[in-house]
Amino acid sequence: MSNSSEPGRVVVIGTVGIDDIETAQASVQGVLGGSATYAALASRFFAPTTMSSVVGHDFPAAHLELLTERDIDLSSLETADGLTFRWGGRYAVDMNVRETTFVDLNVLEHFDPKVPQHAVAESFVFLGNTDPSIQLRILDQVVDPRFVIVDSMDFWIKADRRRVSEVFARCDCVVLNDEEARLFGGHANIPRAVRTILDLGPSYVVVKRGEFGAALVSDDGWFFAPAYPLDEVVDPTGAGDAFAGAFLGSLAAANSTDNAALRRAVVYGCVVASFTVEAFSVDRLAELTRHDIDSRYVEFGDFAAF
Amino acid sequence: MSNSSEPGRVVVIGTVGIDDIETAQASVQGVLGGSATYAALASRFFAPTTMSSVVGHDFPAAHLELLTERDIDLSSLETADGLTFRWGGRYAVDMNVRETTFVDLNVLEHFDPKVPQHAVAESFVFLGNTDPSIQLRILDQVVDPRFVIVDSMDFWIKADRRRVSEVFARCDCVVLNDEEARLFGGHANIPRAVRTILDLGPSYVVVKRGEFGAALVSDDGWFFAPAYPLDEVVDPTGAGDAFAGAFLGSLAAANSTDNAALRRAVVYGCVVASFTVEAFSVDRLAELTRHDIDSRYVEFGDFAAF
Repeated sequence: MSNSSEPGRVVVIGTVGIDDIETAQASVQGVLGGSATYAALASRFFAPTTMSSVVGHDFPAAHLELLTERDIDLSSLETADGLTFRWGGRYAVDMNVRETTFVDLNVLEHFDPKVPQHAVAESFVFLGNTDPSIQLRILDQVVDPRFVIVDSMDFWIKADRRRVSEVFARCDCVVLNDEEARLFGGHANIPRAVRTILDLGPSYVVVKRGEFGAALVSDDGWFFAPAYPLDEVVDPTGAGDAFAGAFLGSLAAANSTDNAALRRAVVYGCVVASFTVEAFSVDRLAELTRHDIDSRYVEFGDFAAF
Repeated sequence: MSNSSEPGRVVVIGTVGIDDIETAQASVQGVLGGSATYAALASRFFAPTTMSSVVGHDFPAAHLELLTERDIDLSSLETADGLTFRWGGRYAVDMNVRETTFVDLNVLEHFDPKVPQHAVAESFVFLGNTDPSIQLRILDQVVDPRFVIVDSMDFWIKADRRRVSEVFARCDCVVLNDEEARLFGGHANIPRAVRTILDLGPSYVVVKRGEFGAALVSDDGWFFAPAYPLDEVVDPTGAGDAFAGAFLGSLAAANSTDNAALRRAVVYGCVVASFTVEAFSVDRLAELTRHDIDSRYVEFGDFAAF
C-alpha cells in the first residue's frame, strides 16, 4: 500500500442512540449517544467522515443538526419506523465499574446496515460493537477497504465466540479493552491474550486500558500511550469509541498505516478520549477544536520521554 | 544540591524474611524474602548498597551468603534472639489479587532499627513498608540524607493515617501502588489522590501500577513508564521493592535527582521489577546481570516513542 499524502475517508458503522447516564455526582437523560456518534465526532477532526446507522422517528432534530454541523456525512444514516435505540448506564464511584440499567434496541432490532458504496473503497472503516452476525454482513459489503478496525464486547464474546473470531480474522485491527481481551484470549495475562487474537489474522491489536491509556501490539512489538491525567472524569461513556474514531481519523489523515502513523494514531486516540470524558455525553467532544487536540498531543510527547 | 558524578550510596532499611509463596501454578516454601532483600538486590547493580534489618538465629547461612556474594554491605544486619520474620502469600489466577496466608513477626516484633551512621550521610535512603512509628524513629536517625523514599501499605494507612502522613511529610518521595494511593488520598481519582500526598510535603510521588507500569508525579508534571510485557508472571512478590531499589540505585549512580535522572530511574525500576517477577523469590533478581538490565532498558526506549 502506498503512503499517499491525500487524506483518506473514514466510514463509521455503529449505533446512534439516546442515553440516560448516571454517575455518583450527577445524571442526564435523553442525551446523544451511540458508538457511531462518538467515533464520527472524533474522526471528523482528522478526515472526512461518513456515518452509517439507523435512528427512529423520535430522534431529535437537534441531535441531527449537531452531527450535520460538524460535517459528518449522514447520507447513510437511515430513519426507520419505530423508536431510536436507547441505553441507560450507571457508574460506580470508581468510574471503571459500570452497570447497564436498560437497553431498548428498538429500530436496531431489525437493522440491516447498508454500507455506503460511494464511500467505502480505499476507506478507513470502523465496525462498532454489535452482534457479530451483523458485523459479518457488514464486512461482506466492505469492498477494497484501506484499513478495517473492529470493536466487540464481553456479551458477544461470551454469546458467540466463533462468529466474533470470524470477524476478527477479517479485520486489520481489533480494538478491545483489557477485560475483553483477557476474556477473548482466555488468559489473565494480556500479552498471551493478545497473541490469541493476533493468531487469528489481524495485524494489530489495540488494548484500551481506561485510566492506564492504550497499548498497540503487532509483530513489530509493543507501543504504550498513557491516559491523560485528569483531575475529574465526568462521564466515561463513549471514550472507547472516541478513541477508535480519532485513531482511525488520524490514520486516514496520514493515509498511512505504517508503524509511525499507528503510534501517532494511538496518541491521538488517547487525547480525544481524554477530552470526551470531561463532560456528559458528547458535550465536550462536540465543542472541541483541533487546536485543543494538538495542544494536548504535544503534552503527551513529554509524558514518556526519558 | 550539586550533581556530582561520583556515585552515591544506597541505604535500605526494611525487612528480611523467609517466605512461603503459592500461585495458581506452583508453590515454594522457606524462600528468601523481605522488602530490604528485594530492594538491596536491585540497587546493588547501580550503587554501593547498605542494608539495615534484623534476622533470627534460624536465618539460613545460604541466604546470608547470597547477599554477601552480591556485595551488599550487611554490617547493619542484626541477628537477634528468636526466629526470623516469616510471611506467607497466595496469588489468585489474576496475579494482581494476593491473600496473606500468615505473618509471624518473630524478631521483627521488638526490632528497633539502628541506622548505619557510617553510611547515611549524603545517602539515598529507602524506608521499606513497616509500622509508621518505626519509620519515624528511623527518620530521626537519618542525618543529612541526599534523598529519602518511603513505602507504606493499606494496613498502616488504615491503622495510623496520622503517623503515615508524618512520615510522608519528612520524605522526598513516596512510593505507593495505585490502590494505596487512592486509599491514602481518599479519592478514586489518582491525580487527586496524588495531590493529597504532594500537599504534605514530598516533592515526588511514584505510583506503582503493576502490569501498567509506574507514574512519577511532581510539580513538574507526569512521567509514565509502562510495565514490560511479559508472557508469564511467575511470582509478583517483591516487585515493588525491587522497583524502589533499582529506582534509588539509579539515582545514586547518577548522584542526581533532577528530572532526567528521576525519569531514567523510573524506567530502571520497571526493568528490574519485570525481571524480578520472572521467577519465585529472588531467584531471577539474584542471577541477573547488568547487561540483562541494560538490554531491556533499551527496549523501553522504543515502547513509548512516537
